[in-house]
Parts: sequence; structure tokens; C-alpha cells
Amino acid sequence: MEYLNSLALLTDLYQLTMAQSYLQSKKSASATFSLFVRSYPPHRGAFVSAGLEHVLDFLQGFAFDREAIDYLTSTRMFAADFLDFLKGLRFTGEVWAIPEGRLFFKDEPILEITAPIIEAQIVETFVLNQINLQVLIATKAARCVHVAGGRALVDFSLRRTHGIDAGIKVARSSYVAGFSGTSNVAAGKIYGIPIVGTMAHSFVTSFEREIDAFRSFVTSFPENSTLLIDTYDTVAGARKAVEVAREMAGKGQRLRGVRIDSGDLASLAKEVRRIFDEAGFVDVKIIGSGGLDEYDLAALTEVNAPYDSYGVGTKMGVSADAPWLDMAYKMVEYNGRPVLKLSTGKVSSPGRKQIFRFVDGRGQLLKDVIALRHEELPGAEPLLKKVMEKGEIKGAYPSLREIRESFLDEFGRLDENTRAIRNPAIYPVELSPRLTHLKAEIEQQVAQTQLPLTQSI
Amino acid sequence: MEYLNSLALLTDLYQLTMAQSYLQSKKSASATFSLFVRSYPPHRGAFVSAGLEHVLDFLQGFAFDREAIDYLTSTRMFAADFLDFLKGLRFTGEVWAIPEGRLFFKDEPILEITAPIIEAQIVETFVLNQINLQVLIATKAARCVHVAGGRALVDFSLRRTHGIDAGIKVARSSYVAGFSGTSNVAAGKIYGIPIVGTMAHSFVTSFEREIDAFRSFVTSFPENSTLLIDTYDTVAGARKAVEVAREMAGKGQRLRGVRIDSGDLASLAKEVRRIFDEAGFVDVKIIGSGGLDEYDLAALTEVNAPYDSYGVGTKMGVSADAPWLDMAYKMVEYNGRPVLKLSTGKVSSPGRKQIFRFVDGRGQLLKDVIALRHEELPGAEPLLKKVMEKGEIKGAYPSLREIRESFLDEFGRLDENTRAIRNPAIYPVELSPRLTHLKAEIEQQVAQTQLPLTQSI
Repeated sequence: MEYLNSLALLTDLYQLTMAQSYLQSKKSASATFSLFVRSYPPHRGAFVSAGLEHVLDFLQGFAFDREAIDYLTSTRMFAADFLDFLKGLRFTGEVWAIPEGRLFFKDEPILEITAPIIEAQIVETFVLNQINLQVLIATKAARCVHVAGGRALVDFSLRRTHGIDAGIKVARSSYVAGFSGTSNVAAGKIYGIPIVGTMAHSFVTSFEREIDAFRSFVTSFPENSTLLIDTYDTVAGARKAVEVAREMAGKGQRLRGVRIDSGDLASLAKEVRRIFDEAGFVDVKIIGSGGLDEYDLAALTEVNAPYDSYGVGTKMGVSADAPWLDMAYKMVEYNGRPVLKLSTGKVSSPGRKQIFRFVDGRGQLLKDVIALRHEELPGAEPLLKKVMEKGEIKGAYPSLREIRESFLDEFGRLDENTRAIRNPAIYPVELSPRLTHLKAEIEQQVAQTQLPLTQSI
Repeated sequence: MEYLNSLALLTDLYQLTMAQSYLQSKKSASATFSLFVRSYPPHRGAFVSAGLEHVLDFLQGFAFDREAIDYLTSTRMFAADFLDFLKGLRFTGEVWAIPEGRLFFKDEPILEITAPIIEAQIVETFVLNQINLQVLIATKAARCVHVAGGRALVDFSLRRTHGIDAGIKVARSSYVAGFSGTSNVAAGKIYGIPIVGTMAHSFVTSFEREIDAFRSFVTSFPENSTLLIDTYDTVAGARKAVEVAREMAGKGQRLRGVRIDSGDLASLAKEVRRIFDEAGFVDVKIIGSGGLDEYDLAALTEVNAPYDSYGVGTKMGVSADAPWLDMAYKMVEYNGRPVLKLSTGKVSSPGRKQIFRFVDGRGQLLKDVIALRHEELPGAEPLLKKVMEKGEIKGAYPSLREIRESFLDEFGRLDENTRAIRNPAIYPVELSPRLTHLKAEIEQQVAQTQLPLTQSI
């Protein structure tokens, strides 16, 4: 952020108080934490992995700078020995993760961090913050792509994403999930995502006559103009755009497209298409926008609304029908001992893990098995890769384009019923017999250690 | 952002293409844009203003740096004269705004920007992005404060806010709306908001016995320990916490509190309260958390669940039941000419405005009148203040504490039925006779200018 040098402070206070207590009670053994989604939000049956690059960059650069230490000192909450310790603290651990742009499912660890307990604990808040958002949006965007019938989708959400960071990450996550571009210029610069834009209603209203606004714009962008035609009356706007297209044709230029942003999008597109076709402009594209999400897109595809592409904004950019995931970062092993918690409705699975994905002869996804890390399941692909070792990122990141292609390929191999945007079929995810056994064993141990003791108090 | 020097690129591409067209068609007259919410989200009847400080900072520092210009050049979308123009572009306009921490209502301009049209247009995306988020969250947080029966609320949302910027702005916005603190350490540093924390389940599971986790923590924080007691069994956890409280009492120390994060929060709190009271620890506080929003808080208050405070996380931090506002930034005047658009369902009101608030003898809010800027309505408070002139911020910002106090004061003077968290009463907002007249006049003019022309094509 412009106002924050040390990202290490982007943490919940309890991460720091726990760290001090770990330090003072000399708990420094290695812990493994697992990041996973506990349940499907409404109408979701799969998730898209995204955000790993930001987490790894954060971990590799993790440090409290002087300003951060000064602030923590000023709170008078922490002991001097702990503040000294923080000054030298770096992340030295190991990370296994599902690469970006892969499908994953409920209960599957998308990422596991193994590090001295203080390090593994203290990074929780940032890791959750970034992966939760990016998986959320990539998943929502994939649903839009799925129902758009092959039409190009462009991210228009920056004005209503939750802040700056979300705006940039939404552009990236939606691109990973198959969007074609974004209106977000910063995301274009940072990630090389194609940037796309048309015009706003204010441009039109700044001219006394709508047609003069159109003329002015195409004069500036003779090769790349999309005119917004719904400021006053969409059909009237389309006729003016036709007039401008004729003027352009007279100069050997071509109007690229028109955008409809309000009203009954399906019937308006049909009328506008007819107007352009009758005037001989069959190549002029129609772009639809205005509060669209996957449910609207599916309805438009259903009635063959003649749109060539869509701008998808707010509802995708905030994942409006499910704006958060039940994602958790839980300790699964400490000092070689598998652990879990039994809190009502939130029982976790112990031990370091691996996910194995089985596909059929045509590559169609069949089922996943969550197993212990050291298990080997022949004929299946292990999804978790070692991406960081001793605090250092292993190898170069794949390009965003590669991630996007890998996602679209795998998404196409997921059963149609699981991809459905309403009441999707549940994809089969099993626990390996060894993991099932370990979980039962640890649950029993925990019950014996923790529960009877209390009844005797 | 850590990856972005020039915030000016945080814009939709069309702001830049329109700007080039304005420049090339020599449109440089002054325009006024108005920022307002077009409709109430479900169960909302009022909004809380927030985010102005970030907008003014942005406007005052607005500039495209060399890196930004280089990127824009590389896209080959823009003309050389326009890129040259951008290098020297600064924001030189005037801003009128409702101060932060005030109530406002549907259709009321929270902010109006008057500047040469390119400047006023190009800042739209950032202005909307920031105000939309912060109003959204301050409004959601105020609802939580309203139903918590005077109990302290703490922002626990950072892990599931939409990114980093949202995390920080949520801490600030919820504090403005009456929260007492945040778990977000960065927000504590940046804004001086009190930071609050307890412990996580992982801390407990890292010890072989739950009670050893408690002992370790209180040893590190003898004056400020809140123990998380639901990792395995809440009632058993409470009994262990009592044992630890007794050990502390023996050393002249005092256990501050316990936290319950899962299960039936109402009945568990009653049982835990009884356990502590019977053991003589009537001062030990009980903190509730775990997916709480205003609806849960209202239910807990209703049954007198004996919580002393609550941690409120995800659902507040993403405004889960209404994760976006129908907020728009619309041109209302260009070159002295009032303008509007007629798009279906989105008709705007022309001209520069002022909002007048009427209260009764006890200060209770009676009604607002939206008027033209130059009107004077005796006996009412004008809400929009001039906060920026010639691109310079006027005067010092109020402190966050002052903003928070001013909000709590005004919120207490809003009718109980309008504050209701379900089906609130609609607060009366009228248009002044002059504004009503102008709107009708401009609508008629626009219809004459824009619509008949098209029928003749």
C-alpha cells in the first residue's frame, strides 16, 4: 500500500501475542498448517486456485521493518525479548501448493506450510486474505465464462471492487478463469492483461447532441470505437450510431461496435442487431453490460441474444451471491504429532497431505483422493507441488497466459453437471484409508486427553 | 500498493480514451459530477459517509508518473499529444462533500466534483471505488453497533476482507461507525485504532493439553489474557480456564476473559457465565465470535446472552448480505448547462446541489431536502461543505475519534424505525421546488433534442 512499507503488519494482533507466548515458552518446533475450504457456498461445486504468486512473494520478503517494530513497541503490549526476536524474523519454511488455475474441491488443502511454529502461524492472516479473495473471484468468473457460450468477457468491476488491491486481484483472477481482458489500466500494466474500454454516459451528456459525442469519439479512435447507445433511448442511439458508421464508411473507416448498458438487454440487442444488419453493418459488434452475473449471462445465452461480448462488473468483482468462502488455515501437525480441533461443525483432518486426481482415458476428471503426504496412489496425479523450500521460491512462476490456458483445459474436462451454475453435482472426493484411520485415531486421542480431564474438575 | 507507484492508473480504460477525445475535440469546460446511491440495498434505510479523506489525498496527489506514461505509450492506443498532456495533468478542481461520519440517504450527493471535464472524469473510478467500499462497510458496521445493546464490537475481518486495501479500510470504516477496535495491526499503526486480540485454535492444539496452552499464554500476558475455550469442548474449556484463573489469583493476577467461537453461542455463554460466577470470577469477561453479523447480534441481545463484547468478522468485513452499493458518479452540469441521462431505470437529477437537513427541537432528524447549490433553506443544516478548492485540501481533517463521536451522536438522533435492521422505515427526502422544476425542464429539453432527431433517421 502507499501507506504501508511492511506487509508483515497485515496480521491479526493475536498472531503476535501467540508468537510471544510461543517464544517465551520455548516452543519452536516445526508446525504444518493447511489451507482449505470447509464448505461450498450456494450453487458452487468446485473452486479455482488463484493467488499463490502473491503469497510466495509475501513469504519470501517477510520481515518487520524498523517502522513496524517502533509501532509495536509503542503499544506497550510486547516484551523486549520478543521485539528483538521479531527484528530478525524471516520466513524459512516449506510450502506445498496446488498451482494456480487448477480446480480443487471442498476439504482439499490448496496450500500447506511447514515452518517453525511462529513463522507458520504469523503469516496466516495475509495468506488467508489473499487466497480467499482470489479463489472466490476466479471461481465466480469461471461460472460466467462457462455460461457465456464462448463470448468474450471483460472485467468492468474496478469501480465497485472492495478497494484497490481487490480491483487489481479481481482483474488477474478473472483473467485466470478465462476472461479476455479488463478495463483496469493498472492491472494491464502490472500483469500484461489486455485492456478494453468504450465510453461512459457522461461523455455523451457532455455534448448537446448524442450524435456529436459519437462523431467526436470516432474522430479520436477511428480504428477502435465502441459507442454507448443507451444514454437516452437505445434504439434511437443505434440509429445515430448507424449514421456515424455510414460517415466512417465514407472515409474508409469501420465502426467497431456499440454497447448497451440498460433496459431489456435481450430484446434490445435483437433490435439493434437488426438495425445494423439492415443498414449493411453486419460486422459491427454488440457489447452488453449493466449488472451482469452468470445467471443473467445464462439467460441471455439461452435466448440467443446477439451479443458478441459482455462487460461483467460489480457482481463478479464482489462475488455478489457468495462474497466470502469458508476458508480456514488450520494446524494439522506440530513437532511430528498430527493434531486437529473438535469445535462444533469445524472438525479438521490431521497430518500433512497430498491430493491425488484420477482421470479417465479421455482426461475427464473422475475423482480426487485426499491422502497423507507420503502416500503414493498409482495412476493419479498428485496436485500439491513443493513451491518453496527454506523460504526460497522454487523455480519461475508460470505466465498468466499459461495459467489461464491450463485452467480452461482442465475446466473443460470437468463433468458438465459439476460445472452447472445451479445445484451442481458434487464431485467425488475421498479420504485415503490411511488418512481415515489417522483421523479416527487422533479424534479418539484428543477426546481422551482433553475431555475426561475436564469432567474431573 | 507495493506494486504500483502511480495511483492515477487505477482507472477504467475508457476514462483515458474519453479524455483523449475531449482533448482532441477541445472540450475543456468545467463539469460537475455528483456521487450518490441510487437505491437502498435490502434492509437498509440510511448510509454512513466514509472515505472522503482517501479521495482528497488522491486528488491532491493526482499525477501520471513516468512509468505510467511509458506503459500507456506501450499500448499504442493513445495519440502523442494526449500522452504529453497527461504528463502535466493535475487535479485543479473544487470538491463539495458530506463530512465523514454523517448519515445520508438515497439520491443524496455525498460528494460533488467541479473541474475541467477531463480532470473530473478521469478520477471517477478511484473516487467510486473508495467511497463505495467505505460507505458500504460503515453502513454495515453501524447496523451491528445498533443491535449490540451497548456491547463493544471489534473488527476481526482482515483474513476475509477482499484484499489488503479492504482490510485496512474496513477497520477504519467500522471504527467510524462505532466499533471499539480492530484485530488488524496495520490499521492500528496507520489510523491509531485500538488493536485487540486473543488466541487461535492452533495455539491450543499446539500443546498436548489445552490447559497447558492456557497456562503458557497467561504467563506471557498476565495482565491481558483472553483464553479461547471452544477448541475441543466449550464447557470443559471453561472449567480449565477457571482452574487457570484460580492459579492466577494465587499470584495476585486476574484473568481478563474467555472467548467462545462456535456452537450455540447463546446457551454456551449462559453456562460459561454460571461456571465463572459460581467460582467467584464475576469479572471475567466473555467474548463471542464466529460468523456474527447484525442479525445474529440482535438475536443474542434479544435473549440476553451474557457476552461483554463481540468479535465481528467476515460478514461485516464483506457486507455479506449486500456486498455492493448502487452508487453512481454522474455528470450533472457541463459548461454551465445542467445535464442528465434518461437510461431506463437510471434517470439522474441535473445541476449542482446542496442537501438541507431539518431536525426538531430535540435534534431528532426530521427530513432532508435536496436543493440546488445556491438555494438557501432557513432553519436547516446544509450538509455539503467545500473541502477542496483549486486542487488543494481546505483545512485539516478531523480526527478519526471526532468523526466516530459525531457519527454516534447523529445516529442516536435518527428515528428508531429508520435504524431498524429489517424493513426500516423510509426517511423522508424531498427535492426542492426549484430542483423539481429544473429536472422537469431538462428532461423535456433532452427529449426534444435527442429523441425526435432519431425518429427521423
